[in-house]
Amino acid sequence: MLSEIEQVLPSEIEKRSFEIITEELKEMGKILCPETELIVKRCIHTSADFEYADSLVFTEGVVEKAKDAIRRGVPIITDTQMGKAGINKKRLAEYGSEVLCFMSDEDVAEMAKKNGTTRAVASMDKAAALGREAIFAVGNAPTALVRLYELIKEGKINPELIIAVPVGFVNVVQSKELILSLEDTPSIVARGRKGGSNIAACICNALLYQM
Amino acid sequence: MLSEIEQVLPSEIEKRSFEIITEELKEMGKILCPETELIVKRCIHTSADFEYADSLVFTEGVVEKAKDAIRRGVPIITDTQMGKAGINKKRLAEYGSEVLCFMSDEDVAEMAKKNGTTRAVASMDKAAALGREAIFAVGNAPTALVRLYELIKEGKINPELIIAVPVGFVNVVQSKELILSLEDTPSIVARGRKGGSNIAACICNALLYQM
Repeated sequence: MLSEIEQVLPSEIEKRSFEIITEELKEMGKILCPETELIVKRCIHTSADFEYADSLVFTEGVVEKAKDAIRRGVPIITDTQMGKAGINKKRLAEYGSEVLCFMSDEDVAEMAKKNGTTRAVASMDKAAALGREAIFAVGNAPTALVRLYELIKEGKINPELIIAVPVGFVNVVQSKELILSLEDTPSIVARGRKGGSNIAACICNALLYQM
Repeated sequence: MLSEIEQVLPSEIEKRSFEIITEELKEMGKILCPETELIVKRCIHTSADFEYADSLVFTEGVVEKAKDAIRRGVPIITDTQMGKAGINKKRLAEYGSEVLCFMSDEDVAEMAKKNGTTRAVASMDKAAALGREAIFAVGNAPTALVRLYELIKEGKINPELIIAVPVGFVNVVQSKELILSLEDTPSIVARGRKGGSNIAACICNALLYQM
């Protein structure tokens, strides 16, 4: 059985994976847009799920805008510790940027309890209260996306980018469509039910790795 | 658009999600084994991917064996910081157990470089050198699974459980089959290319939440 293991140098594993993904996309007849293909391929690399070739939606010029924001040191705010763990913080720090996640903060738990919301909603409110430019990477909670939509509509925030890729069954599809309905907010959205903290992190990394 | 958001209490979101999953599995005619269905459903909950109803393979009695090991305080060793971040460490601590991840350790990086292996391999060697009972939760690196297989065949370790759910394109399928070929090692395996750190973490949590 060990003989069936392909001998690939550690440093070559990722390269070989991307070659396989590229070959299979070609066999499927999928043609990706050059601006966004590295992000799509990295999502497939992270999930082994080729549905991302169809489900990912990018607003116009979003990749350049996102890279500009990172270069200006704009922080990434995530809705899970897993998302935070997965983002390459060393690379991000090279641009003076960082990842923030307020989900485990005590004041967030208290605010959520007091207001009868999810902690994700309270953590978005906490982020808004910072009054800073921000990139939001939401991989878990559709309630976070709904709150971001409300905050934008109320003129309280104006995100540099929303990565809208929560996963699940309750309000996930709808919350992503809400974000896509925002005409002036750059976004990267995985339409449908699929996504996750790992996808949110990998999209951030895909942006970083092409800078 | 906001009117399309279903009103669900924060405390009810997970319950509602599992109801939808249960309904849709029924519509698909999938019948799950009572011992393992909570794990399968939580993997679907984490990924929105119903393929896990078919791809997850459990060795006999593995759920009870895994719960026994956790109750004895056996630690979970993961191959990613993301997996570690996703496991409910508070619940685990109630049993005197913990999550260990050696991937960012300096000695692991050095050993990997010296031996020309992945860091995942070096981190499995470090785990083996502890000489402790262990549950392995591998969500990223097939090379970690290959090394665990070798260590078991060499009689150097005898894991309480291997959660074998790496994701990807290079040796992922083969490495999982290697683990399944081990007759005396309890395992939970996601056959095929799919899996991930999030799936590894969610299987650990699914075990904890039924204890």
